[in-house]
Amino acid sequence: MLTTTTKPRGTSDYFYQLDPSLDLLINFAKNLSRLNGYYEIVTPIFEHKELFVRSVGSTSDIVEKEMYEFVDKNNRPLVLRPEMTASVCRCIIENNLLMKMALPIKTFYIGPMFRYERPQSGRSRQFYQFGVECIGSNSYFDIVEIVIFALSFLQIFHYNEYVLKINNICGCETRKKWITALKKYFSKYKEKLSIDSQKRLDKNPLRILDDKIDGEKDFVKKAPKITNFATKDEIDYFKKITDIFDQQKIKYVIDDTLVRGLDYYCNFVFEIESTSSLLKGQPTLIGGGQYNTLLKKLGSESTNCVGFAIGLDRLIVALTNNEIFKKQKEMYLNVDVVIAPLESKFDSYALSISNCLKQNAISSLTKFGTNKLEKHFKYAQKQKAKFVIIFGEKEIKENVVLIKDQKTRQQEKIELKNIVSYLYNKLGWKK
Amino acid sequence: MLTTTTKPRGTSDYFYQLDPSLDLLINFAKNLSRLNGYYEIVTPIFEHKELFVRSVGSTSDIVEKEMYEFVDKNNRPLVLRPEMTASVCRCIIENNLLMKMALPIKTFYIGPMFRYERPQSGRSRQFYQFGVECIGSNSYFDIVEIVIFALSFLQIFHYNEYVLKINNICGCETRKKWITALKKYFSKYKEKLSIDSQKRLDKNPLRILDDKIDGEKDFVKKAPKITNFATKDEIDYFKKITDIFDQQKIKYVIDDTLVRGLDYYCNFVFEIESTSSLLKGQPTLIGGGQYNTLLKKLGSESTNCVGFAIGLDRLIVALTNNEIFKKQKEMYLNVDVVIAPLESKFDSYALSISNCLKQNAISSLTKFGTNKLEKHFKYAQKQKAKFVIIFGEKEIKENVVLIKDQKTRQQEKIELKNIVSYLYNKLGWKK
Repeated sequence: MLTTTTKPRGTSDYFYQLDPSLDLLINFAKNLSRLNGYYEIVTPIFEHKELFVRSVGSTSDIVEKEMYEFVDKNNRPLVLRPEMTASVCRCIIENNLLMKMALPIKTFYIGPMFRYERPQSGRSRQFYQFGVECIGSNSYFDIVEIVIFALSFLQIFHYNEYVLKINNICGCETRKKWITALKKYFSKYKEKLSIDSQKRLDKNPLRILDDKIDGEKDFVKKAPKITNFATKDEIDYFKKITDIFDQQKIKYVIDDTLVRGLDYYCNFVFEIESTSSLLKGQPTLIGGGQYNTLLKKLGSESTNCVGFAIGLDRLIVALTNNEIFKKQKEMYLNVDVVIAPLESKFDSYALSISNCLKQNAISSLTKFGTNKLEKHFKYAQKQKAKFVIIFGEKEIKENVVLIKDQKTRQQEKIELKNIVSYLYNKLGWKK
Repeated sequence: MLTTTTKPRGTSDYFYQLDPSLDLLINFAKNLSRLNGYYEIVTPIFEHKELFVRSVGSTSDIVEKEMYEFVDKNNRPLVLRPEMTASVCRCIIENNLLMKMALPIKTFYIGPMFRYERPQSGRSRQFYQFGVECIGSNSYFDIVEIVIFALSFLQIFHYNEYVLKINNICGCETRKKWITALKKYFSKYKEKLSIDSQKRLDKNPLRILDDKIDGEKDFVKKAPKITNFATKDEIDYFKKITDIFDQQKIKYVIDDTLVRGLDYYCNFVFEIESTSSLLKGQPTLIGGGQYNTLLKKLGSESTNCVGFAIGLDRLIVALTNNEIFKKQKEMYLNVDVVIAPLESKFDSYALSISNCLKQNAISSLTKFGTNKLEKHFKYAQKQKAKFVIIFGEKEIKENVVLIKDQKTRQQEKIELKNIVSYLYNKLGWKK
């Protein structure tokens, strides 16, 4: 393997001129965020390792097995961020934003995350996530609103092969009681559990519930439920949320095996799963929930928060056959004008026209150094140019150019000084 | 130091709601790229170390001292990318794009780069770069066009505190002869050179020329010039470019100490330096040039290429007092509507209105869980909302809302079914 001509295993190149899928989803995400009043946050690609140990949890798969770790030249342990919620909270605390901003703080992020996993369809070791965080909420309506936000990302594409799964994983105290009960219960069935699940028994028995194989076993399905340990407040709170879902006609399924893989979640959690065969084995498109104790755990005050994240690479797979997405991709490539000097000795003239167009917001491309008109037209076709501007000796003398409309195939002679207004008119723009 | 509440040294958080500078520059860069027919390329954050050793050069400061190195779990040496030109070329080769695309390939990138340097004003260890690459060019007009592209990024802001420096560093053969002559020449002055320069003498004597201290010494200024070794073709080629600059009225200075710090450059190189006191000691805003042998060095065929890169963090510093940039920043924060239910028991009603607005592309925010109208207005002010929609028991019964224009302070009673058309009209949008 030539390491100079191969990307690292589990990573991707996105060359938008050939496949603009990621850019399109990023633009949709930014537009939806704007509609919902969310502003972007950009944090470093790497963080102190301790941040994720404390937030995601030392016994989580992510922290135990999946982090890209390194040290800087002062031997400080750093990791490529495996997720962003912890980074957002670190930034909120470090910059004292709970004091500076109107609450709730509504912020979103888009960027690469890193997990050293076995590369699989729709999830690489470097993968792109879009996520939103609502920090300092004092109403369960913020939770409903964020679920609607998540759903709207699918509705743009009229994508309806999904199911919204929700669960009440209660507060820390209740979860502790439940985990104790689960440990006790599962230890009776230890020999029936997979090796992986046996390892989890002591450290993280919740993950036995959503294990792909063990989760299907009868005794796992019959394991104690968290609702047996929940307080009245916890049950009421969850009920209030589902009541609003009902009012707003949002369909959901309560799934009591839904526990999420990160320690910081509490109370209301949700996942949107694709039901399409395109994502078999990896159906989760969107995951999120509340994390009311995370800021406190990181050294700030207790603050109600809710958020979600979408794996964009997986969403691209889910949208493979989507007509709306396909159409968007087709429309992506285009340039207003290709400039075609009949001989390369007029390249300088072409450059001047090109500068003038760009100063008037008209995009233009020129293939310099050619004497062949058909090369310009081939180029214009490949670049999906709307117009081709042609000129040679004769046109330059007369102070005109020929402008060919690539759609109608019609060609007109236009005075040099009128090129911009002619094109504005043709493009339907206002001067 | 609490590692959970501090970002790693030399990195930054960008919270756009408070300071949107980076986002604004990214948007300008994307818009200029569109005008110039450049499409984005997104490559992994890390690459095989060997890629940069082979391209940037094993004796360059970047490769010798500044890379964040780590190994994956199979002990493959990886590094966080210190620059992007090598990654772009790797991607071009790996995906066989020289065959697939119309030439020249015009592509741009924006994203974080990583160099383990002493953090300094406008340059962090993680810093943001925008860069463009024109690959497979067969005309020197592409070089002029790319310099115009670079200049236009400053012209948007009417920024004119800069100087365009250019130089002819010729091809490999000529440079080899020159380097041999420089080694011979400088070894006569060895004891007059700084310790750093003495180390460079054998490996990279070019860097003595642009060393901040030694570069000012008389004997360094009198060192042999590359033009003494240049072929006629090399001199003619450079002359053709400066002739077009003259024709297009582009001002430049020929600086024969301009060598750039990366091995892959050849022939025409340029830098745009700020003359503002804001960037004292670190004046380079934009740097670029030709790299005609890089693709071959990485295993592909010899291909003429030219590109440039802009450090966005440093450009932000340069634009500190720029009026156009300031105005853009002021206009960044805004939301169309804040929805203000008079009592929190109407939050569900607010949610329905908010959903309807968003489905019609009107952005809206609601502060849920409050019974105080002044809180809604304070929130609307902080979020720079254009309109506030108010309703209580009475309005709900009558199927109306009150809409207050935050600019004119006027308030009107609007029927529920007319909210969207009323706002479209007020916002000057077409239905």
